[in-house]
Amino acid sequence: MTTTVLDNIGLLVTNSDEMGAGPLGAIEDASVVYEDGLIVEVGSSGLAADEMIDAGGACVVPGFVDSHTHLVFAGDRAAEFTSRMAGRPYDGGGIRVTAEETRAASTEKLTEDTALRVEEARRAGTTTIEIKSGYGLNVHDEARMLAVANRFTTETTFMGAHLVPEEYIGRADDYVDLVCGEMLAAAAPHARWIDAFCETGAFDADQSRAVLEAGRECGLGLRLHGNQLGHGPGVALAVELGCASVDHCTYMTDSDIEALAASDTVATYLPATDFSTRQPYPNARRAIDAGVDVAIATNCNPGSSYTTSMSFCIALAVRDMMMTIEEAIRAATSGGARALRRDDVGRLETGYRADMVVLDAPSYHHLVYRPGVPLVARTIGSARR
Amino acid sequence: MTTTVLDNIGLLVTNSDEMGAGPLGAIEDASVVYEDGLIVEVGSSGLAADEMIDAGGACVVPGFVDSHTHLVFAGDRAAEFTSRMAGRPYDGGGIRVTAEETRAASTEKLTEDTALRVEEARRAGTTTIEIKSGYGLNVHDEARMLAVANRFTTETTFMGAHLVPEEYIGRADDYVDLVCGEMLAAAAPHARWIDAFCETGAFDADQSRAVLEAGRECGLGLRLHGNQLGHGPGVALAVELGCASVDHCTYMTDSDIEALAASDTVATYLPATDFSTRQPYPNARRAIDAGVDVAIATNCNPGSSYTTSMSFCIALAVRDMMMTIEEAIRAATSGGARALRRDDVGRLETGYRADMVVLDAPSYHHLVYRPGVPLVARTIGSARR
Repeated sequence: MTTTVLDNIGLLVTNSDEMGAGPLGAIEDASVVYEDGLIVEVGSSGLAADEMIDAGGACVVPGFVDSHTHLVFAGDRAAEFTSRMAGRPYDGGGIRVTAEETRAASTEKLTEDTALRVEEARRAGTTTIEIKSGYGLNVHDEARMLAVANRFTTETTFMGAHLVPEEYIGRADDYVDLVCGEMLAAAAPHARWIDAFCETGAFDADQSRAVLEAGRECGLGLRLHGNQLGHGPGVALAVELGCASVDHCTYMTDSDIEALAASDTVATYLPATDFSTRQPYPNARRAIDAGVDVAIATNCNPGSSYTTSMSFCIALAVRDMMMTIEEAIRAATSGGARALRRDDVGRLETGYRADMVVLDAPSYHHLVYRPGVPLVARTIGSARR
Repeated sequence: MTTTVLDNIGLLVTNSDEMGAGPLGAIEDASVVYEDGLIVEVGSSGLAADEMIDAGGACVVPGFVDSHTHLVFAGDRAAEFTSRMAGRPYDGGGIRVTAEETRAASTEKLTEDTALRVEEARRAGTTTIEIKSGYGLNVHDEARMLAVANRFTTETTFMGAHLVPEEYIGRADDYVDLVCGEMLAAAAPHARWIDAFCETGAFDADQSRAVLEAGRECGLGLRLHGNQLGHGPGVALAVELGCASVDHCTYMTDSDIEALAASDTVATYLPATDFSTRQPYPNARRAIDAGVDVAIATNCNPGSSYTTSMSFCIALAVRDMMMTIEEAIRAATSGGARALRRDDVGRLETGYRADMVVLDAPSYHHLVYRPGVPLVARTIGSARR
């Protein structure tokens, strides 16, 4: 097996608790040796290997872990976005528009479009990506979406409980029965996780609990969308059920934060969603200072957050959610890894995957200091697992 | 002379008052023929020419006109930015840090670094760029900065009145005399414009007026920085003197807006600066609804806005300054052209320069709808004039 060294790294962010300096375990003048996609040594510049890649003195950070996307979909919703920017509020109802287009799209077209989006994310430094279903909203199309997602990542999430589809409006409990029964049976072979949108207008706490408990029975890990559009039961339910992550968390009470801090559930912020829906940004300081474990993800989807850029999310988290730059970088790497309960990504240490982003910058600070500038010079590692 | 056609344009933004539909003069299924960098015909798909570039059905917009940058500088101020994100307020004092580093840098190094930044801006769709001096702050280095800037653009601006340099602190009027005398004489041969930073802590209204009037005597056009950090005399002074543009405009009174609306002075917003200094964003609706002519620019500089991305500025202008998407696109193209009093860029009509951006998107809405995603597939035309 061939060994490769990424050498001449001006500043290496390891996220290690043992190595390096500061909250990011940063090492100056470093090199990383890897073999078959796994790191075998991290040390000073000049480590030996069969092949060498020259980082040119740049900063290298762990590949971004985007723990929340809806990448498999058809159509776009630029018109809805435009009317929202002209003042129309966001209520999530547009999910049904995308569901209609996704059901009508061929599997070939869905696969092609997803491939383009995964590649776009990879160019922007994302090396681990979660993909949810939730625009099928029937047995056939939910399973079909997950089969497509599975071609690109092992982090697939069944989200039949995204919204009550058109044909079940007024019969939400019947739809929940379908999700927990036949739909889950068809989806589970393609999924690692189950998720639900616990929000006024989507699913209430009892319905969300029923869905997640059914998923757990089938061996799926649990995640939850909650507290996006207002205060609600999502965060408390996620903690109660031991979800790996509760996502959005725009509106949290003090007791939500206390519950999260005492739990193993990660709070995943989706700042590009607050940007694109013109919602207020949550103040992450409140949660972090209380001891909550946090992640940042893109929530890439055609309705409320059509971006694959983790750098953009990091910049917003610092500017508008009051994270420090170091906290935001960690949240986008090792935070995402914890939100997916992965212990092989999010750090650059021996035994971890060699998923690395070479920046066109001398320091990770530039990801926030130079907003909007594409600073990913090279992505090493794959988003396809 | 060879003619070229950019063909198969799905949606062409012309900014024309005569052609196309809506506020952007948009034409579906269009082509643009140009020769020696100038447009000779705009029409439906399929126009004939010697050479053909296929836009692949994408949206094409006029090249961005970035009417406010400080691209010639040495060093970076990531540490200052980081401490600001941790709560330290912005006061502009860091300009002296960059002045010290710029004075110490070789002309060769300044030229190389400026070339990289101009190329980065061009990749992001900027085809006309203004560059200011203002980190020399002495006779020799101001002239040297402008000579460097002149290698990249004709839109060069002498800004000796950027900040009182270290060695003149307490003797601001003596420094203003130097700026208006020997420094202006050395700088004017390299400059088209003169500018001053009219703000508490920089130069007051009388000092700014003296500088701009001296510049006018030398044949330079007038611009002014004003109303960035608080209410002040900048906007009123710019209107009084007939400046082409007054830039920042974060704080404006009703009478500032009335004066601008009745003038030929453009209000140039720099939203990435408000992002990077955590200042409040101005509400552009107030000014636009009052009839003020507006532009958007990056203000690319190492202290308060280290971005070359006009797309990022457009997205912020819509999300946070309440512009419509169409208003923001116009402000970044024909608005910038008016701020530079150019009648050859900012539109795609016969006789205008063939400066065009092919987007990796079917519509210009995506520049805001897909924030943080690099959507410029190809830039046609040069930033070097």
